[in-house]
Amino acid sequence: MNPLEALDYAGVAVFAATGALAASRKQLDMIGFVFLAAVTGIGGGTFRDIVLGATPVFWVNNPTYLIVCVIVAVLVYFTAHLVESRYRLLLWLDAAGLSAYAVMGAAKGLALSGSPIVAIVTGMMTATLGGILRDLLSGEPSVLMRPEIYVSAALVGAGGFVVASLLGAPLIVASAVGVVAAFAVRGGAIRYSWAFTPYRSRAGRPPEDVI
Amino acid sequence: MNPLEALDYAGVAVFAATGALAASRKQLDMIGFVFLAAVTGIGGGTFRDIVLGATPVFWVNNPTYLIVCVIVAVLVYFTAHLVESRYRLLLWLDAAGLSAYAVMGAAKGLALSGSPIVAIVTGMMTATLGGILRDLLSGEPSVLMRPEIYVSAALVGAGGFVVASLLGAPLIVASAVGVVAAFAVRGGAIRYSWAFTPYRSRAGRPPEDVI
Amino acid sequence: MNPLEALDYAGVAVFAATGALAASRKQLDMIGFVFLAAVTGIGGGTFRDIVLGATPVFWVNNPTYLIVCVIVAVLVYFTAHLVESRYRLLLWLDAAGLSAYAVMGAAKGLALSGSPIVAIVTGMMTATLGGILRDLLSGEPSVLMRPEIYVSAALVGAGGFVVASLLGAPLIVASAVGVVAAFAVRGGAIRYSWAFTPYRSRAGRPPEDVI
Repeated sequence: MNPLEALDYAGVAVFAATGALAASRKQLDMIGFVFLAAVTGIGGGTFRDIVLGATPVFWVNNPTYLIVCVIVAVLVYFTAHLVESRYRLLLWLDAAGLSAYAVMGAAKGLALSGSPIVAIVTGMMTATLGGILRDLLSGEPSVLMRPEIYVSAALVGAGGFVVASLLGAPLIVASAVGVVAAFAVRGGAIRYSWAFTPYRSRAGRPPEDVI
Repeated sequence: MNPLEALDYAGVAVFAATGALAASRKQLDMIGFVFLAAVTGIGGGTFRDIVLGATPVFWVNNPTYLIVCVIVAVLVYFTAHLVESRYRLLLWLDAAGLSAYAVMGAAKGLALSGSPIVAIVTGMMTATLGGILRDLLSGEPSVLMRPEIYVSAALVGAGGFVVASLLGAPLIVASAVGVVAAFAVRGGAIRYSWAFTPYRSRAGRPPEDVI
Repeated sequence: MNPLEALDYAGVAVFAATGALAASRKQLDMIGFVFLAAVTGIGGGTFRDIVLGATPVFWVNNPTYLIVCVIVAVLVYFTAHLVESRYRLLLWLDAAGLSAYAVMGAAKGLALSGSPIVAIVTGMMTATLGGILRDLLSGEPSVLMRPEIYVSAALVGAGGFVVASLLGAPLIVASAVGVVAAFAVRGGAIRYSWAFTPYRSRAGRPPEDVI
């Protein structure tokens, strides 16, 4: 198993766990846990493969990824009540998955397109799509709309990997640079509420008042 | 027309009808009916084909599916007021579409990938995605989040088809097994409020209280 | 640059601007502006290419589209406070993007499938998907659910292009017919609240009252 494959399994597993935690917060049944775990776990990578034209997508070629999602969902089903704050655990696992997938998405994008900017975008989209789908389907407020840094951490991870690769770093070093950079930024954002200066101007009025 | 093709048209037509019924509940205009009918009717199969790499997708190769959606939407537009409870009709048609698409998705997944587990997953996703899109776009509460059994019925249908196929049943028998199994489970869930024991522990707190 | 390519860049740029305006209404940070601008700008065309099997999708082959989104997002970040009503500007830019993309989507669908009905559907989906994604991700009420004409304008634009093409009009004339028709319909809908007779019957009751 090369470092990218290990990252891929790790990303699927921790994103699957966040999906199962969201199912637990909504008190779904076990099949609901498995479904949300699978959608969250494989969502980002599925989109990455589709956009890059690498179809059939990764889990059709290798169903082990699906089995990982099922196992993780069952484990979470029987242990989630032990966790003091499921949402905080969800955020930290999401941070780990985002870091793994930012690098994995960038690596596959770079390999298939050769373009650094495409690699950064596929890295960002792969890293954030699983969480977006999870929040949409489970009715949680989207992580995207929270004030702390989120998409930027994926940008830093994908960018770190791409820059290190272009500078000639071996795959395992470039991957480590990207993962550590993304996790440091997102972890700091969770722990210390890091945020960029938000847009200063007024919030939008409701559409009805405007038209 | 082989049994799978018949199932495919049936699945598109009944899902299209649920989309048009959702449009009627939101009092959209006729083009809104057609749009929601088309998205719901072809959504699941579109995703199935994309993931399996069977592009261009089925309705690009055979636009008859689109014409079916338009006809269904117009019929619903002129008849929906005759129905006593549109939401209950929507749920039953959704159950029929889910049953047809669970088998159809599993059959295409099995044929293209050869893997039973991939077939079950493509069956489940094909069966549930149309309804998820319909609810997301029309702002209905998602069928996924309801307590009665939903995804599990798709699992039973896809699984029944795959097991029967692996045991050597002819296509029409395996299809019938899957459709009947899925419809029995989902129909029972609607009629008798069947549900698995939900996850017992506490519901999630709002994110603001946790971070 | 042929007329379709110009339309494509124009569509990406104005949709990206609507995404950035939505980000400004939600007071996101600059990376949030870029993210929503990119998703809205390239969302429709990405879906069109995936469905038609034209993968890798357009922005993987030509990352200039991504750079356009970034530039537009930064420009909006620094100028949005100058606009009296960001939502009204968003609606008008959305109308321009919808017109450009209805034609662009229909043209690519016609070229790749040869079927007028497929071309009209890919035109409508390309034209509306960016706005649907923007509203879903930013939590705005969906443009689809508003009473004024929206999807129909995309239908008119895509249909105008297809009919003009089938009648033998040169590409630039057919494109102009489609764009002007779509913009006239959608612009009139915004300005004069044009709407079809909506579905007359009663609105849907909440699911809880029905089951």
